[in-house]
Amino acid sequence: MDEFNPPARLLMGAGPSNIHPRVARAMMAPLLGHLDPDFLRVMDDVREMLREVFQTRNPATLPVSGTGTAGMEASLVNVLEPGDTFVVGTNGYFGERLAEIGRRCGAEVVTVDHPMGSPVDPDALRASVASLKRVKAVAVVHAETSTGVLTPLEPLAEIAHEAGALLVVDAVTSLGGVEFRADEWGVDVCYSGTQKCIGAPPGLAPITLSERALSVMRARKTKVQSFYLDLTMLQDYWEQRVYHHTAPVSMIYALREALRLVLEEGLENRWARHAHSAAALYAGLDAMGLAVVAPESHRVPSLTAVRSPEGVPEADVRKYLMAQHGIEVSGGLSALAGKVWRVGLMGHNSTVSNVFTFLSAFENALAAQGFEVAPGAGVAAAQRSVRERMA
Amino acid sequence: MDEFNPPARLLMGAGPSNIHPRVARAMMAPLLGHLDPDFLRVMDDVREMLREVFQTRNPATLPVSGTGTAGMEASLVNVLEPGDTFVVGTNGYFGERLAEIGRRCGAEVVTVDHPMGSPVDPDALRASVASLKRVKAVAVVHAETSTGVLTPLEPLAEIAHEAGALLVVDAVTSLGGVEFRADEWGVDVCYSGTQKCIGAPPGLAPITLSERALSVMRARKTKVQSFYLDLTMLQDYWEQRVYHHTAPVSMIYALREALRLVLEEGLENRWARHAHSAAALYAGLDAMGLAVVAPESHRVPSLTAVRSPEGVPEADVRKYLMAQHGIEVSGGLSALAGKVWRVGLMGHNSTVSNVFTFLSAFENALAAQGFEVAPGAGVAAAQRSVRERMA
Repeated sequence: MDEFNPPARLLMGAGPSNIHPRVARAMMAPLLGHLDPDFLRVMDDVREMLREVFQTRNPATLPVSGTGTAGMEASLVNVLEPGDTFVVGTNGYFGERLAEIGRRCGAEVVTVDHPMGSPVDPDALRASVASLKRVKAVAVVHAETSTGVLTPLEPLAEIAHEAGALLVVDAVTSLGGVEFRADEWGVDVCYSGTQKCIGAPPGLAPITLSERALSVMRARKTKVQSFYLDLTMLQDYWEQRVYHHTAPVSMIYALREALRLVLEEGLENRWARHAHSAAALYAGLDAMGLAVVAPESHRVPSLTAVRSPEGVPEADVRKYLMAQHGIEVSGGLSALAGKVWRVGLMGHNSTVSNVFTFLSAFENALAAQGFEVAPGAGVAAAQRSVRERMA
Repeated sequence: MDEFNPPARLLMGAGPSNIHPRVARAMMAPLLGHLDPDFLRVMDDVREMLREVFQTRNPATLPVSGTGTAGMEASLVNVLEPGDTFVVGTNGYFGERLAEIGRRCGAEVVTVDHPMGSPVDPDALRASVASLKRVKAVAVVHAETSTGVLTPLEPLAEIAHEAGALLVVDAVTSLGGVEFRADEWGVDVCYSGTQKCIGAPPGLAPITLSERALSVMRARKTKVQSFYLDLTMLQDYWEQRVYHHTAPVSMIYALREALRLVLEEGLENRWARHAHSAAALYAGLDAMGLAVVAPESHRVPSLTAVRSPEGVPEADVRKYLMAQHGIEVSGGLSALAGKVWRVGLMGHNSTVSNVFTFLSAFENALAAQGFEVAPGAGVAAAQRSVRERMA
């Protein structure tokens, strides 16, 4: 078997996204033992920076040693016990997954279903929560990766807390790319992934737990069904250095460097950069006559789902982009499979230059499938958007 | 926060171990999307090489996206259902962990306890299994990382299979460093970690499942309590490309390159190299008047637990080794905490040169704590062992 030399790709799908060269270099640093004093300092650094990125003071903030789905599962198995009532506002693929994992925890799961493409409606959620007695937790996806829809969290925290429930939030596609304020918004449990707006490779799931969440965990009657994802033990490892598992050292190095880049840029600057490049993308798509799934008021700047026009084979467009331009975009999930492209502008990749590159290639790819776009129409509109915003 | 530049360490503890420069370089290769055709080929390569390393033809062979403990949990949650009887032969810290995870699966766990330092006794295990009706699985740790004791697996497979139970094996510290033959020995479920004898960074848990294990999984009445570690879904992702989670791409690159190195060397050569350097270590320790925990007949060549002599503060010796020589060795776990050093000779690090380096530094460290060793006594004995074996 030969050495593997991957082709260079511009990763503009649902993640992973390209990483900054500094992050790649950090990953190569010599390994340390997982209990080495120098590594313990790295762990502290990572936790401190994660708190900043989550905008929280929660002591219980750490990266789980698994991908975003491990973060989702950790969030639920530690909070839910068999028989607990768990309400999920679902508006896409990942909301469904929250519900599925809740069921595997033995919880009574009540979903408040929304069409794919809509944000979670606070009134519908409130009505559902009010109709139930003793809700243990309410969960939503902040930025639905399957649709690119953003759901505002503040009203939902109020609903959860009034019912004495925890608010659990999936911030996989939003954290580091769009405004997020765990403490101010009243988020109790929040998990994310490293490979999207944080700008590290996939493999870790940052998580943060409020004091309210910790007291629910302390009051458990049963052990957490997962040993690997037992957050009390993980917190003891990250805080008290009690051995639990061997942390993925190289990935932690990468995350540390990615977080340094996030904070060097500044969170608000980073959110603004994501908004800026997304605006250029929207302008370009609009000029090309293409529709964005999410309503203008509720868009995730780091991920845009675009409807493929009637008669255009969406998979062939993706194949063309990959083969001819080395650009990856993602297809749709569940009800949107075959009906949308999902275009990511995440972390290091969220730049106006990448928008120009993508739109030009996309125009080509659509033309190759017989969908005529005036060459440069999308790019021109994106340029105008950028100039206006910068003026 | 500054750039992190870790000190260079010789990692001779219980893992992680140092990695070959080719593995570090592989990790830096440009990211690909987790469904990119080029990445799918990498996944196939990894599975094919893992089968070789496990010495199995099991189609269900893949790396779980977590560390060794995730592999342990995946092995149990997929096989056990609430109320199932699960027998664990315990002879150290990791056997206890198997039992604990079994209990978290809702199984009736029966442990067959052995003193730390003994292998699992087939007769004791057979008696326990015979006294129970309907045992679902029997588990043991092949190479107990807490003691350096090796338990032969063939007799245990027979015991499990006669009772209609599966044999689950922890090969975290053995795989790639000591003879292991999943198919020939009748192992049904086996997991390992990447950071020991495989020679990759920590972060993945290779796992393999026999047809017998798969049929037990197919006959489940309940869903697997973990979504993240649901091996049927993971197998669908690795085989049918059904999206389940975003694989840790960079870690998979690293594992691919580590496995290439394993197979370039040849499995049997690699086992012989581990045995060769371990023999030199044993000779040196013996000449220094130090006792190895494991009996000569049941030693793990990749990990040696050495008793710290009466009155020698074991933690100070480790600190000295780290501070003065940049060498990491591990302390003891559970009943052996404070009583042993654990010396790893794993993967890339399992060389006679490292044994010489370690023994020289160890003699120094012990002398600094007032335990007098004639300078060079250990090294001289190790040299003689090497010359004899090479003659």
